[in-house]
Amino acid sequence: MINKLISRIRKTGAPIVVGLDPMPAYIPEHLMKAAFAEYGETLKGAGEAIFAYNKGIIDAVCDLVPAVKPQIAMYEQYGLEGLIAFKRTVDYAHEKGLVVIGDIKRGDIGSTSEAYAVAHLGKVTVGSKQYAGFDEDFVTVNPYLGSDGVNPFIKVCKEENKGIFVLVKTSNPSSGEFQDRLIRSTDGSKDRPLYEIVGEQVAKWGGDCMGTDGTYSNVGAVVGATYPEMGKILRELMPKTFILVPGYGAQGGMGADLKPFFNADGLGAIVNSSRGIIAAYKQEKYANYGSEGFADAARAAVTDMRDDIRENAL
Amino acid sequence: MINKLISRIRKTGAPIVVGLDPMPAYIPEHLMKAAFAEYGETLKGAGEAIFAYNKGIIDAVCDLVPAVKPQIAMYEQYGLEGLIAFKRTVDYAHEKGLVVIGDIKRGDIGSTSEAYAVAHLGKVTVGSKQYAGFDEDFVTVNPYLGSDGVNPFIKVCKEENKGIFVLVKTSNPSSGEFQDRLIRSTDGSKDRPLYEIVGEQVAKWGGDCMGTDGTYSNVGAVVGATYPEMGKILRELMPKTFILVPGYGAQGGMGADLKPFFNADGLGAIVNSSRGIIAAYKQEKYANYGSEGFADAARAAVTDMRDDIRENAL
Repeated sequence: MINKLISRIRKTGAPIVVGLDPMPAYIPEHLMKAAFAEYGETLKGAGEAIFAYNKGIIDAVCDLVPAVKPQIAMYEQYGLEGLIAFKRTVDYAHEKGLVVIGDIKRGDIGSTSEAYAVAHLGKVTVGSKQYAGFDEDFVTVNPYLGSDGVNPFIKVCKEENKGIFVLVKTSNPSSGEFQDRLIRSTDGSKDRPLYEIVGEQVAKWGGDCMGTDGTYSNVGAVVGATYPEMGKILRELMPKTFILVPGYGAQGGMGADLKPFFNADGLGAIVNSSRGIIAAYKQEKYANYGSEGFADAARAAVTDMRDDIRENAL
Repeated sequence: MINKLISRIRKTGAPIVVGLDPMPAYIPEHLMKAAFAEYGETLKGAGEAIFAYNKGIIDAVCDLVPAVKPQIAMYEQYGLEGLIAFKRTVDYAHEKGLVVIGDIKRGDIGSTSEAYAVAHLGKVTVGSKQYAGFDEDFVTVNPYLGSDGVNPFIKVCKEENKGIFVLVKTSNPSSGEFQDRLIRSTDGSKDRPLYEIVGEQVAKWGGDCMGTDGTYSNVGAVVGATYPEMGKILRELMPKTFILVPGYGAQGGMGADLKPFFNADGLGAIVNSSRGIIAAYKQEKYANYGSEGFADAARAAVTDMRDDIRENAL
């Protein structure tokens, strides 16, 4: 699956993933009104508004970017109707040729982790039949439980040719509370922060699940754009690991901050922007599009982000 | 909510939570057959079999235990139909007076963590209306992203009088890969493992969200029964923190191993068993119940577990 992502990055020339995080405050009023007129102020109404919003964004950007990343929490909060909107979004993005990264940050142990992997990347067996639950291409995974938590995902990735991105250094201000703690060396070398230890382990896990041409692994890492110096170290520690980089734009990261996340081949990273694209119409810069023009504003924001990355990061 | 849990523990005299992890291999054949006869070998059929299985267990144990803990991964793998079965299980357990701990191990940052909290513990706003998505009483939370990830859960816990259990030291063999790493002290005191640092932070978070009588916090911790010596240290570090203890029975923990997890008041811990109860009918000890008697076998296993804890742990 990493090779499919790379081939789409090459085709679009844009190592960008659009985060489909439909916060209620971002959804244009006319879409809300239309959904409520048809379904009332119900969970189904909310789900319909979310899907209409996502569909508008996907239609506007699908020729410009390789991938989208729906954040499942934003759907899960609307219960089953929200998850129906999530599934419709995954399916619609696939119809439009996009790679889908499910931002689910799941992680458990053994058969439970395998059940999550089956839910999102694989197929579940029911009697003599098999069904895909949510059917994303990649998902994000939390490493806190160690190999027992990650290996079941890798097993399913191998069976289905799918991939994962493991959290290493997240983009948020308090990510250092645990991730930056200095771990005492056991071999006389210098002490290193936890995120480096996790990064090294991600590279190790990844060695067991390489993409078809052997350049990059189907096991990627999440490293926040807000920490470019740590990104540089992690890029060196994990040379064959693709890095999913959140934190661009609204969270403070800029094009030049992204440089350390890429390899010399111009690959190795894919940068996420959510709010900065899907709610671009709320920014002064794109205000002329108005809320009815949210999709065109998103397209303009993607173009600007692509140019920023091309000029300042690659 | 912690006070409701404590009052039910006192009433039943059993600090036990029954893990509702309906692995396909555990579900008795007659329930599978009945569901497939009605709905075919479909995801809906699987969901119906799961719910029938859970209902049997809940009916058999609801007067003996304070709580159940459905593991959402086991439902999520059947997609939307699985999650319908999850929601029906939560609602049915509530009807039977049980406290419901959603084992969801979610964790993200800011508004995303808040969306998970709203999904599982709170209410989402749709226009002028509010709806509960999944409506558990407690959920499990992953701490890897730090305070930015946990505080939004605490916010919702305060609003709704609900609770969380934060992963500190998990029961699996590889949990030490990151959790046991020695963190270099910054104040000249001795180096300590990551799980102690996380445990201390859990106690700090918990101080801000105490139960109504001030004895225990609505912010609990997960510490595996398989690590009793670490449990002892964590019990002292987090005196007002309730500990959810997985790993009893099938994962190797025994009654005597549980002693360190309890406080002198006989409270402070609730022990989970999943397979050991819900699939008791598959053990030699309870084989006489047969698969048709799976619910009675579960009841017998709960009684034995309660006696083991009373005799050896309290």
